Amino acid sequence: MEKPYVAGIDIGGQTSKIGIVDARGSVLAQTTIRTDSHKDVNLYIEDLYNALIKVSSKIGGIEKIRGIGVGAPNGNYYTGVIDNAVNLAWGGSNAIPFAKLLKEKSGIPVTLTNDANAAAVGEMTYGAAKGMKNFIMITLGTGVGSGIVINGEVVYGHDGFAGELGHTTAVRRNGRNCNCGKTGCLETYASAIGVARTAREWLEMSEEPSLLRNYDNITSKDVYQAATQGDKLAIKVFNYTGKILGECFADFVAFSAPEAIILFGGLARSGDLLLKPIVENMNANMLFMWKNKVKVLFSKLKESDAAILGASALGWSD
Amino acid sequence: MEKPYVAGIDIGGQTSKIGIVDARGSVLAQTTIRTDSHKDVNLYIEDLYNALIKVSSKIGGIEKIRGIGVGAPNGNYYTGVIDNAVNLAWGGSNAIPFAKLLKEKSGIPVTLTNDANAAAVGEMTYGAAKGMKNFIMITLGTGVGSGIVINGEVVYGHDGFAGELGHTTAVRRNGRNCNCGKTGCLETYASAIGVARTAREWLEMSEEPSLLRNYDNITSKDVYQAATQGDKLAIKVFNYTGKILGECFADFVAFSAPEAIILFGGLARSGDLLLKPIVENMNANMLFMWKNKVKVLFSKLKESDAAILGASALGWSD
Repeated sequence: MEKPYVAGIDIGGQTSKIGIVDARGSVLAQTTIRTDSHKDVNLYIEDLYNALIKVSSKIGGIEKIRGIGVGAPNGNYYTGVIDNAVNLAWGGSNAIPFAKLLKEKSGIPVTLTNDANAAAVGEMTYGAAKGMKNFIMITLGTGVGSGIVINGEVVYGHDGFAGELGHTTAVRRNGRNCNCGKTGCLETYASAIGVARTAREWLEMSEEPSLLRNYDNITSKDVYQAATQGDKLAIKVFNYTGKILGECFADFVAFSAPEAIILFGGLARSGDLLLKPIVENMNANMLFMWKNKVKVLFSKLKESDAAILGASALGWSD
Repeated sequence: MEKPYVAGIDIGGQTSKIGIVDARGSVLAQTTIRTDSHKDVNLYIEDLYNALIKVSSKIGGIEKIRGIGVGAPNGNYYTGVIDNAVNLAWGGSNAIPFAKLLKEKSGIPVTLTNDANAAAVGEMTYGAAKGMKNFIMITLGTGVGSGIVINGEVVYGHDGFAGELGHTTAVRRNGRNCNCGKTGCLETYASAIGVARTAREWLEMSEEPSLLRNYDNITSKDVYQAATQGDKLAIKVFNYTGKILGECFADFVAFSAPEAIILFGGLARSGDLLLKPIVENMNANMLFMWKNKVKVLFSKLKESDAAILGASALGWSD
């Protein structure tokens, strides 16, 4: 039987997105299920499988699906295991053989990777990195993730866990505590949560007037709104965030000399507010041969599609 | 005519090493010439070519050589150009099409790379990284260089200049000035010169007694000697150097998840004095999945052979 389609599954902390994709990268059908409604992975997989069957009815049945690609936090490409994914209700501290479980349930080959790597594959196949062989994808969401592509291939490293740039050290002395147990991680400054944290710290530290003083529980979106209204403190928060990102990007460039660094995720919608200080500080901290040569771009994929497309691209590989 | 050998050339600031290597990695013949005796690259290439002819007489003549591999500071694998190599007398600030010049002179295909990448290839082919597909080579000499191997291939990046880990930022605020124009580069702390600089700074800053106070112009070897004699200040210098290296290594691991980091060069002969603080600080700064899993090893190649062997391995590729 002909199997012309692949499924892409993006597992997030709250919801999981499921899409059916054809060889040209069109999302033919999609649906979502709750990720956080089960503590047990087997029950979650039951839900996922039922949703997959249902959404497949629009393309002639699940028999038309040749492979499933899954992007998940802490997903390991080599082993198919989701390891210690504390943000997933059923992730806990256990190593879950997710690819194996889903393959047994569905009878379809399953390839797993982490969500940022999946986004990088999506960007390379369909987005801003089309035609690029060397780039770094940085996802600026609740956390900071990364997918690194060298010579046209995602870098998985010796153990499958390569590309954790959100947990490189941005601030070496007296850095912020990170959920990972370390201090000073890039993620604690440059994620949506990090931006809100910077704003709150600065509001406490100074008496400077700011629109943000009107908010109760400041989010990165509030900081963005205030900055677009000319609020000086909010603008300084973005300059600081961009400075930290730019300094770290300079070091990433020294590692793999990418053609571009591509920004993805909620915070990447801040546009020039974030881009300008990033580019300025990155160039100030790079060796001469890279100055003004390495592009910083925004993702060209719709956020809702990118993860599905990226994950689905893995579905062709088996 | 059968061409069973390759030549490996390692260009250093003072001397250049030339070796003839067979397919099993035996150095059959070798010689050296001065690098710093000419301001003009054409005169240097004339010397190099004459030395190559002379050393080739031991293996049946230059006609037996199938390819030449060259490792040089700032050597670019893609373009064959040595760019802005300030440590080479004839390097200056110009872009020198070295591979092309040597090929025209010798009639033999020439492949160029930077010296640290050449050492990584040598280590992978003949040394401590034999059989490894993912590792990082760190050369601790006058400067700090690096060669990164991912999936069994040296990482050159988009432009051929990837792997400048000596110029990633080890100290972000008030870091030392580096020759490259930046501040806080790893090289300013962890090179032989950096170690001597730390010792001199600390001797000035404190009144602490130390054997090093007897020296006029302290070198890293003096610090090593003093440390092996139990000198507390000298031991602290090594602990500090190892701490800085370990912290940076943790970030390198987050990038490419290597199986091992391999140390090469003069300072790597310091043994446990340097290794212990490196390993301790690296493990303290890594995510849980890497703790106590990433090896830190010393090169297994004789320093005099490594560069020739590494460069020569490139000679087979054409």
